[in-house]
Order: sequence, then structure tokens, then C-alpha cells
Amino acid sequence: MSICFFEGGFRLTGECSLPVTDLVITRGIGVFDSIRSYSRRPFALGEHLKRLEDSALRSGIAVGDIVANIRQAVIDGVRRDDCPDDGDCIVKAYITGGDINDNGLFPNPRHFVIFDPGEPVNENDYKNGVALQPTMESRPYPLIKSINYLVGIMQSAGRDDVLECLYCPSGEAMETLRASFFICKNNVIITAPVGKVLGGVTRNIVIDLARTYGFKVNERPPKVAELEEADEAFLTGTWKEVLPVVRVGDTWIGDGKPGPVAARLLRLFRDSRDRWLEPEN
Amino acid sequence: MSICFFEGGFRLTGECSLPVTDLVITRGIGVFDSIRSYSRRPFALGEHLKRLEDSALRSGIAVGDIVANIRQAVIDGVRRDDCPDDGDCIVKAYITGGDINDNGLFPNPRHFVIFDPGEPVNENDYKNGVALQPTMESRPYPLIKSINYLVGIMQSAGRDDVLECLYCPSGEAMETLRASFFICKNNVIITAPVGKVLGGVTRNIVIDLARTYGFKVNERPPKVAELEEADEAFLTGTWKEVLPVVRVGDTWIGDGKPGPVAARLLRLFRDSRDRWLEPEN
Repeated sequence: MSICFFEGGFRLTGECSLPVTDLVITRGIGVFDSIRSYSRRPFALGEHLKRLEDSALRSGIAVGDIVANIRQAVIDGVRRDDCPDDGDCIVKAYITGGDINDNGLFPNPRHFVIFDPGEPVNENDYKNGVALQPTMESRPYPLIKSINYLVGIMQSAGRDDVLECLYCPSGEAMETLRASFFICKNNVIITAPVGKVLGGVTRNIVIDLARTYGFKVNERPPKVAELEEADEAFLTGTWKEVLPVVRVGDTWIGDGKPGPVAARLLRLFRDSRDRWLEPEN
Repeated sequence: MSICFFEGGFRLTGECSLPVTDLVITRGIGVFDSIRSYSRRPFALGEHLKRLEDSALRSGIAVGDIVANIRQAVIDGVRRDDCPDDGDCIVKAYITGGDINDNGLFPNPRHFVIFDPGEPVNENDYKNGVALQPTMESRPYPLIKSINYLVGIMQSAGRDDVLECLYCPSGEAMETLRASFFICKNNVIITAPVGKVLGGVTRNIVIDLARTYGFKVNERPPKVAELEEADEAFLTGTWKEVLPVVRVGDTWIGDGKPGPVAARLLRLFRDSRDRWLEPEN
């Protein structure tokens, strides 16, 4: 089951469609954000919507009051009886280029919001850690969360032994297809700065928590050559929260098992998570 | 007026729409090709469809008999009474990822073909030449003509003084947003090789013609530093055919006016064009 806020109302997602002339279809002009909802309470909604608006504006899409509309739709949607998984769901808000390309500006965008069942990470992945496929490719314009995932998806297409790709342009480990990437060495946490990578909402919260609890955090891109010497590596993301990484390509991280820093940050994140939820109905 | 071959039949394009769950909308999984038709006769149809099929396969899209269906749709469509501009039109064939992402492979794609009015180049652009905006960005995977044009479009958004961007990663002038790029120095023509750039259909024909008529053609990327010394520069493309370039960023090419080589190649191209048209009805 999936519902969709579309053209001002809620419908079954399967009944919603976009004209083939929308520039998201013909020219890939579209941005989105994925918001998790815990028991009908969206997580970090303001941060996600700010990023969505930034993505649209940087892409040349005229946002107008679309983000305010999306905000209300998210809040209303997770409270509906037909919301999947009783509001323990993923909410994907899209803004598309619409039909008009005015010399690279998009004055007449469309928007819709899909409410899908949750996408929980396999518990074994927390226990055993995951592997990543390094690639020389990079995410263009990391401050824009656009729909253009083809190149990233291609990097690990058909591979069952890796979770997804790790973008490593110029020998620096930036971020993965759908998560922020961290290494840890001697209790110092290292991760690429926002701007070189997408401003991950969970990333930013985890960095704050880490600093609050006494970790040093260096915001610079970890070098691929540093992976061999790292004690730990991990990802942060909306569904991953804090997920250990044990292998990147042929390189095992530390002793090849999830480490204590990732486990501690996951606990801290889960313990503080309610602070970031929208108020209850 | 625009018609569309969609779900097996012809309709008004305005009546055709894709489910919001298609991966072309949610993840940018889609490829296309644009075919020009002259008086109901598609130009270089086989070359365009080969490139479309390659683009899809390299993207992980299962093509099956889609390209054969598109071929018949193009031939049928340009002969219809309701085809725009009596078949002097642009035919845009799309293959989208469909709803299923099977670990980076797309087993259940959709396809449609839009027949739009022609997009003739302004005659003044042939007379005066056009300007380009250089950018360090590049087209990822040049052998895939994907729908992901956002980054390229952004490079000259809102600019009235340039036609489009010229991708110049690492100081090499590769191709523009929608055309192949050439320079000419002492009657030697220089252009990036296919693989570093999209295999332009008009590009390949123009190179063959140039060699046949005694020009030397070097297939290597022109360096940005060579632009100042070039005698001429020009683009090739489906609607541009052979279009002179007189400025790249702040650099004027030659004497800042269209040159004789571009003019000669345009004549040669137009004189031989009928060879590449599909047989008449």
C-alpha cells in the first residue's frame, strides 16, 4: 500500500501520473527528499524541507509556496488511516521541472509526495557490517539532491556483495549513493564537509552528538589510502541511522568487524531521536 | 500540435502520462534519442536507434523488442495526417526504467515516442555564429544518452548571450550540452573521439564527408588553450547540422566570424543528406 499527495489531494499512488512532457521525464529536472516518520511523527521535517527547497532553487526551479504545501501534506499524510504501516513509513517529496524550460529556469514546477512502507535495514547488517563499492565517479553538485541516480546505481548494478557505491573522486572518499560516509581512527571521526557532499540530515545530527559526547570530528574528506589504517568506518542515513562498514572494495576496515564507535553513536542517536520528531497530533 | 506513440497507439501528447512510480521520475533512469524527419522521411534512423539501444543496455535497461517497436512507430508516425509540420518534425524516442529496480537492473521498462514540430536554428546563427559557455563539468558516461541534463542546463541558465555550455573537463573541449564540437586549424579538423563524447550521428557523417573531400580529421579532444589559435570552430547536431562557433567564454575564435570550412561542410552535408533518409512511402 502506498498513498500519494498529488494535485492537492490524497490518492492511491498507483493512480497518480505525470504528463510525458514534464521535464523530469524528458530532461531529468527534478529534486526530492526522503523523510522518515516514526509512529506518525516525521523526523527532522524542517531540515529535510529546507534541503528540498535549496535543491529546487539551486536547480532553477521556482518554488513559490510548494514547500509549505508539502509540509502540510507530510503532516496530514502520516496521520491518515490509510498511511502505510500506521505512519511508520517513508515520505518522499518530489518537485519536478514542469513543462516549461525558460532558458534553464523552470517557472511552473509540479510536486507530489509519496507515502511508502518503511525500508528497514536488515538487522544482520548492523551485526556484521556492510561492504561498499568504491568508484572514481562523483555526485555532481552535492548541494542539490536531484533525481539523477543513474551513474551511481550503475557502479554496483547486479552486485550482491556490496550495499552500494562509495564516491571516491581524486582518491577521496566522499559519500555513498544514499548515505554519508565516516571513518574513525584513534577516536577521531573524519567525514567530508557539506558542499563536497550532500548535507545529510542524520549526518549533521550524529556529528553534533559525537562532539557533545567528547569525540573529535574532522570535517575533511577521508583519503582512500587512509581506509587501510582506519579503526572503523560507518554510514549515516535516514533508514541506516548509523550503520557499520567493514569493507570498501578489497580493503577490510580495522579487524573486519563493526566497531565500538559506530555502536555507541547508534545508541546515542536512537536515545535522542525523539527530540527531532514533529509534535504528536 | 504534438502526437505521441504511447502504450501501443498514437494519441495527443497532452493525453499521455507516466506513473509517478516510474524510475525515470524517482531516480532519473531513462534514455532517449532525437531523430529528425524531413518531409516524412526520418534521417539516419538506424544509427539513432542503434545508439538508443546501446544507451538502454549500458544503463541496465532490458530492451527486448522495444527498439523494433519504436522503429515501426517512427516510420508510421511521420506518415500520419496529424504528424506536426507534415512530417518535417522532430521525433523523440524515450525508454524509461519502469517501476522495478532489481539491484540496478531494470527488467520492465516503458517507452514512448513524441512527434514535435521542428526546432529550426535561427538563420542569423548561421550567418553570425554562436557563442558557448565553457564549464569544467563533463557528461558522465558519454556512450549513454540519458535524460540527465540538469547539470549541463545549469551551466548557462538565464544567459542570453550563449547558446549552451561546452564541457571542458581537465582543459579539454569535449562536446556541448546538445552538440558535437570541432575546431579547425590550417584545414585540419580536430574533435574528441567517441567514448570521450557521445557518438553524434551528424558528427560521424560530417567527419566522413570531410575526409572524403580531402580534409585531415584528428579525433582527439581539442585543448581549451588551442581555441585562441584556431581558425574556426563549429558544432554538428541534428538541427544544427553544421553551425559556426565564434566565441567560447571570453575567447573569440579566429577573426570572430564564421569561417569557410564550416560553410563548406554545411553545404556538403545538405547536398548529401538525402542519402540518409528512409525510403519514401
